Amino acid sequence: MSREFFATRTLAEALDGFNPALRTPAQTVPLAQALGRVPAHSVLAPAPLPGFARSTVDGYAVRAADTYGASEGLPSYLDVIGAVRMGVAPEVTMAAGTAVEMPTGGVLPAGADAVVMVEYTSVTMPGMVEVLRPVAPGGGIVRADDDAAAGAVLVPAGRPLRAADLGMLAAAGITEVVVHARPQVALLSTGDEVVPPATVTLRPGQVRDAIAPALAGLVLAAGGSPMLCGIVPDDPAALRDALQAALTQADLVVISAGSSVGARDSTAQAVATLGKPGIFCHGLAVKPGKPTLLAECDGVPMIGLPGNPLSALVVFRLLGVPLVWRLAGCATPPPEPSVIASLTRDVPSQTGRRDVVQVRLSGGQATPLFGASALLSVLTRADGYLVVPESATGLDAGAPVSVVLYR
Amino acid sequence: MSREFFATRTLAEALDGFNPALRTPAQTVPLAQALGRVPAHSVLAPAPLPGFARSTVDGYAVRAADTYGASEGLPSYLDVIGAVRMGVAPEVTMAAGTAVEMPTGGVLPAGADAVVMVEYTSVTMPGMVEVLRPVAPGGGIVRADDDAAAGAVLVPAGRPLRAADLGMLAAAGITEVVVHARPQVALLSTGDEVVPPATVTLRPGQVRDAIAPALAGLVLAAGGSPMLCGIVPDDPAALRDALQAALTQADLVVISAGSSVGARDSTAQAVATLGKPGIFCHGLAVKPGKPTLLAECDGVPMIGLPGNPLSALVVFRLLGVPLVWRLAGCATPPPEPSVIASLTRDVPSQTGRRDVVQVRLSGGQATPLFGASALLSVLTRADGYLVVPESATGLDAGAPVSVVLYR
Repeated sequence: MSREFFATRTLAEALDGFNPALRTPAQTVPLAQALGRVPAHSVLAPAPLPGFARSTVDGYAVRAADTYGASEGLPSYLDVIGAVRMGVAPEVTMAAGTAVEMPTGGVLPAGADAVVMVEYTSVTMPGMVEVLRPVAPGGGIVRADDDAAAGAVLVPAGRPLRAADLGMLAAAGITEVVVHARPQVALLSTGDEVVPPATVTLRPGQVRDAIAPALAGLVLAAGGSPMLCGIVPDDPAALRDALQAALTQADLVVISAGSSVGARDSTAQAVATLGKPGIFCHGLAVKPGKPTLLAECDGVPMIGLPGNPLSALVVFRLLGVPLVWRLAGCATPPPEPSVIASLTRDVPSQTGRRDVVQVRLSGGQATPLFGASALLSVLTRADGYLVVPESATGLDAGAPVSVVLYR
Repeated sequence: MSREFFATRTLAEALDGFNPALRTPAQTVPLAQALGRVPAHSVLAPAPLPGFARSTVDGYAVRAADTYGASEGLPSYLDVIGAVRMGVAPEVTMAAGTAVEMPTGGVLPAGADAVVMVEYTSVTMPGMVEVLRPVAPGGGIVRADDDAAAGAVLVPAGRPLRAADLGMLAAAGITEVVVHARPQVALLSTGDEVVPPATVTLRPGQVRDAIAPALAGLVLAAGGSPMLCGIVPDDPAALRDALQAALTQADLVVISAGSSVGARDSTAQAVATLGKPGIFCHGLAVKPGKPTLLAECDGVPMIGLPGNPLSALVVFRLLGVPLVWRLAGCATPPPEPSVIASLTRDVPSQTGRRDVVQVRLSGGQATPLFGASALLSVLTRADGYLVVPESATGLDAGAPVSVVLYR
């Protein structure tokens, strides 16, 4: 089971072709916890909204026909037969030639079909209003089902809930929503040199695990729930046992393997014994990120990441984040912010390979940050990244580039 | 205290001029809860990172000078005097003419200054390696302080923590970080017609409170902590008492006032009695959103929002979200995603007023969604919004526009 056995895939091939069927189960959450969660089903309006014809202005409810032809010089004179109070249904029914005082949001009385704004009226005699401009039927009001007809989709399945969606559900009296559970993402690190972040004193050659805490952040931002599974020694049996245990608990298993050839191969060997259909690819035509492994073991997807932090985070952002969203029932992840900037220097690349280049932005200019992919500081110093697509051999200084912004 | 007393402000005037000094206190949180939180102070590296010179490739540690002039035809022959194991300091010290086997990430032995990649070597005799290409000093390694020198800024104050920042802190052994507390944002709704979302059966004229749950979503997304304070009756004393109580508990008080002139004025009257310096503006040159009130009462900022959901959410996104970030010590909120699209029809506006227009996107085209600002469905149907700036009298069909995307 050598990695040469598996063809290297492009990012698009991996995103399209590696598509595990697993979706997290549905669960019911209150609205206060529903932001960003993905509805498992469309939620329909149980009744029309707002549920009654409502004024959208302060003014007078009228029969529109009574105002036709009205002008400042020749107003329509209407009898004011009452006033609507907020939150109370008016008892009055309007006949021709009458008007009723209306607050914004009040219930339109029976017989009225419009509200004329107070700015276009004048009161010179008690009990009488002069209408100075005509209003069309439907003017100054929303109808009983203008916000939603009964049975209309209030929020669609599969799209993360936004603030306005929460308002719409609340308006309909829906205070709980059925959403996909947060994908449980097991994060394992390997490497005999890797020790937990809380380790105070390092022996020479040891490094603290930076990848798992950073991946946990990306998982959280993608709506997942990170499970920090600790550090696995560079031992085939230990690796296999740890992966097996993670597969039984998680919706996605992510292992940041050692970067050496031996460490990478031992991950692939362990994965190959764990379940069907097994390895999808071992090798991604992305720089940094070449030694990436994708597998599915008895229905649970697995990502083997490069062992150095920068590469691991670049690959997880490209492949892992969309996968976490997909496991939660969201096919199209929320958009990322980006900006167009001018490149300050040439960026070399190779045809057939996608390069992800960290950049700093200043005054509309993007300066590439080069550095060993072992350096996490390249990422923390960056404002975002640009992509050199597979079709290009590089980008020229001065070219306009789209920079995806970190937030 | 009539609202005519206060000049209408532009959005820029409000963002620049309304700048309460309040910042939330610092608190210590573990890394696992630190994503998106704002460091109260810069965090400095307590020691150099990675802390030792490290190989970035699989290969052989060498003295670079021993490889100068090496080629496939005329390799450098070096004695292999040992092999470095991951996580363990090598005991060997290298003399001229020697090499040490290196895994990626291993500690560079004393005396070595580069690592030549295994791909550029050949082993034909045990104990001897042929180097086929020269390597420069520093090649194939990172130095002990390449990721951070001791005392260097690992993460700056005032910028929300990103996934990579969490990794950097973990690498330095920092497992807790001092951040600004989440701003407590009190959300009050008013209106005799407004009832809680959980109300099953509405009386004619009643509407459920959609604004507070939606604002809670925007507050959460801005890193704040929403406090749902319920619905206040349209009564000056009750309003004043509710605002007074909220001011003592919250870092920001948000009240969505009734939309009628009377309801708006009663909010302003209540606010005017509550503390200094009081009302900053009552009126915003934004559509929708004109009847917006900004105030500061004894150090606590307050926003009075229009009473209809669409206007309230538009204004809170423009003014409230940056304010929540600012209260947490972040001057520049994280960027929003946006896209350039072509407008499908004319959008009229007025000079001096900023229009916020909800749009649907399809195939690179932005179609404005018009509708009464009382309709929340205009917002839930939108993919994003465009802005007609104060200087424009409108936008023409076919014009390229920048659309801020909801996510």
